[in-house]
Amino acid sequence: MTLTDPSQTLAALIRCPSVTPEDGGALSTLAGMLAELGFASETVTFSHEGTPDVQNLYARLGSDGPHLMFAGHTDVVPVGVRGAWTHDPFAAVIADGEIHGRGAVDMKGGIACFVSALARLIARRGAPEGSVSLLITGDEEGPSINGTEKLLAWAAARGERWDAAVVGEPTNPDQMGDMIKIGRRGSLSGELTVEGVQGHVAYPHLADNPLPGLVELVDALIDPPLDAGNDRFPPSNLEVTSIDTGNAAANVIPARATAKFNVRFNDTWTAESLATELRARLERGAGRTRLRPGRGPVRYRVGFESRSAASFLTRDDALIDTLSAAVNAVTGRTPALSTTGGTSDARFIKDYCPVVEFGLVGKTMHMVDERAALADLESLTVIYETFLERWFAARVQAAGTR
Amino acid sequence: MTLTDPSQTLAALIRCPSVTPEDGGALSTLAGMLAELGFASETVTFSHEGTPDVQNLYARLGSDGPHLMFAGHTDVVPVGVRGAWTHDPFAAVIADGEIHGRGAVDMKGGIACFVSALARLIARRGAPEGSVSLLITGDEEGPSINGTEKLLAWAAARGERWDAAVVGEPTNPDQMGDMIKIGRRGSLSGELTVEGVQGHVAYPHLADNPLPGLVELVDALIDPPLDAGNDRFPPSNLEVTSIDTGNAAANVIPARATAKFNVRFNDTWTAESLATELRARLERGAGRTRLRPGRGPVRYRVGFESRSAASFLTRDDALIDTLSAAVNAVTGRTPALSTTGGTSDARFIKDYCPVVEFGLVGKTMHMVDERAALADLESLTVIYETFLERWFAARVQAAGTR
Ligand SMILES: [Zn+2]
Ligand SMILES: [Zn+2]
Repeated sequence: MTLTDPSQTLAALIRCPSVTPEDGGALSTLAGMLAELGFASETVTFSHEGTPDVQNLYARLGSDGPHLMFAGHTDVVPVGVRGAWTHDPFAAVIADGEIHGRGAVDMKGGIACFVSALARLIARRGAPEGSVSLLITGDEEGPSINGTEKLLAWAAARGERWDAAVVGEPTNPDQMGDMIKIGRRGSLSGELTVEGVQGHVAYPHLADNPLPGLVELVDALIDPPLDAGNDRFPPSNLEVTSIDTGNAAANVIPARATAKFNVRFNDTWTAESLATELRARLERGAGRTRLRPGRGPVRYRVGFESRSAASFLTRDDALIDTLSAAVNAVTGRTPALSTTGGTSDARFIKDYCPVVEFGLVGKTMHMVDERAALADLESLTVIYETFLERWFAARVQAAGTR
Repeated sequence: MTLTDPSQTLAALIRCPSVTPEDGGALSTLAGMLAELGFASETVTFSHEGTPDVQNLYARLGSDGPHLMFAGHTDVVPVGVRGAWTHDPFAAVIADGEIHGRGAVDMKGGIACFVSALARLIARRGAPEGSVSLLITGDEEGPSINGTEKLLAWAAARGERWDAAVVGEPTNPDQMGDMIKIGRRGSLSGELTVEGVQGHVAYPHLADNPLPGLVELVDALIDPPLDAGNDRFPPSNLEVTSIDTGNAAANVIPARATAKFNVRFNDTWTAESLATELRARLERGAGRTRLRPGRGPVRYRVGFESRSAASFLTRDDALIDTLSAAVNAVTGRTPALSTTGGTSDARFIKDYCPVVEFGLVGKTMHMVDERAALADLESLTVIYETFLERWFAARVQAAGTR
């Protein structure tokens, strides 16, 4: 295998069937490539009651600062209907300038390009002046309990410190150079139950229908909007994901009803301040009687999930600018600096060092016939190589002038 | 058995375990009593695909007019937890001045008192000048498909015509003399589905959450009130009986959601005019965007049950006044003329002749330890006897003066 060719490093990883929580040899294949480049690797298995054990990899090249982390995952989502794939999802078939396989873009492709970028840089100029680490989990697509969060804590407990991190998730919606992620919205889920009194529809005064009250509370949660967003973040957004009663009898007023909701929130809020705001909205809604004239306050209870994700915004301008400039140098495009989309493992890394995300084009991720253009692999490899060279140079220069 | 004693006629009926659709010998027991009084009876069994066959009884005494119908049912609701009963629910045990058993008040008691009233009247004065019919179903507590509605059509097809009808359901909330029912609200059920587009909560612009639209539509259905009621009817009332989505994934915007509702409506509406009003409300709600800014009209569909019940009000003042006066003469109380409560088989009878409802006290109906006070049985028997005597006398007198 030629490590400088990302289609070869990627093919080797695709051929390991690493559907979460299976590793399929992916981490040892990666560790083997990194060993060729001089990395020292350690595989760490984490356990948690009720979830499968998961393997993770931490590999470091160099012992001094500055220290750059590359983070990602080798696990992949299931293939779905295998017969629907044009090519075997674990065969890494190259056809029409694209390499096919589960994980090609999310995100074995990102890892493969980073390995090839390092191989090229080392071949051309030797190892960077400082340290490069890869922090790779096998539990990003699963419950994410035995993955990045624990691996960071494990490494930090051994004295590892990082100056910056790049996550190799596919961040470009349409083509290379579209978008760098410089933060993420937080996520908070909750469940709301309204208690009523069951009864017959012909005798509503003897019952207390929970549904008009639930409608008032849902209305109060949704309206008005939580915020208008700001220059770095879109508006926070609340979605009611389910309202359920389960009453099959047309002549019966139900005893209770529930609503579930999820908020993707920007840096206007913490999970705590948002929960406080939502509780205040529910209190206001509970006092409304337009839909339930003559009734007292709505009797309800609300609970929020314990594992919420905080929002974050990376404020390391040098890191962002260096990556953005590398993207521009290779693609000729100026990437949007975005905080849109779902959560990623960057939400854990941000507690240790500034983190940005840039990878392949995400169009086919999680889909049948997931695939990456060879041209995109080459582009991303050169972007990572350019970024590595410039980031270390700037860091070393800054240290020298201090 | 002494037919003039309602505790004996009732005990005989209670001892027939006639939980819908079983007859348990109830109709032949009744037919036997009626035969002693000179009635000619016919048992009719109706069938409908998907429902059990049910027996019904039509019995007539006399061949000329005026013609009074007494209507009711011998079937009873299940006993529930049999061990929870103080006395065997089919043993007709008399204790502390009450007769215990399933159906004691709903409504074998009403039938028993009517039979005893007839027995007393015939013993005292001979058969009424005209005809008395009993139209008794075994399918009132069940789906009501093979019962009163078909029995009326069957009898009418044989040339039966009635001048007035009394239904013996328990109409008194607390004590004898409380309430005569002179009409009933109608009932209309509907189901509403809002269509959205499924998606991920992190990308709400790629999805279309059906729940804010459903909340707007439910709001539009509930508010403002349908009407204020009138001197004979309480306000029409809409209850949303279920809202359901069935989405278990906290990060997924659901594709669709449903709401079910039922309206109990007064004579301001027909089922058709009410459906038209509800469709208009939904159209208005569908255009509201407060909870779903920037979206087009809510995409929804609504369906109404085909077997709705119309509201009705009996306008035969002579019938109402004669019954009311009989109640007052026996109890010393002036009964409320009410249209409250659920639907009854009177909704079918009203298409053939004026109909009123009066029976025992309903407090224990459908409950464990259903029971009737012997004093109430005596009271109701005398009320029915007084009503029979006065109604026929007034009719015969009116015919004579014409
Ligand atoms: Zn991923
Ligand atoms: Zn009944």
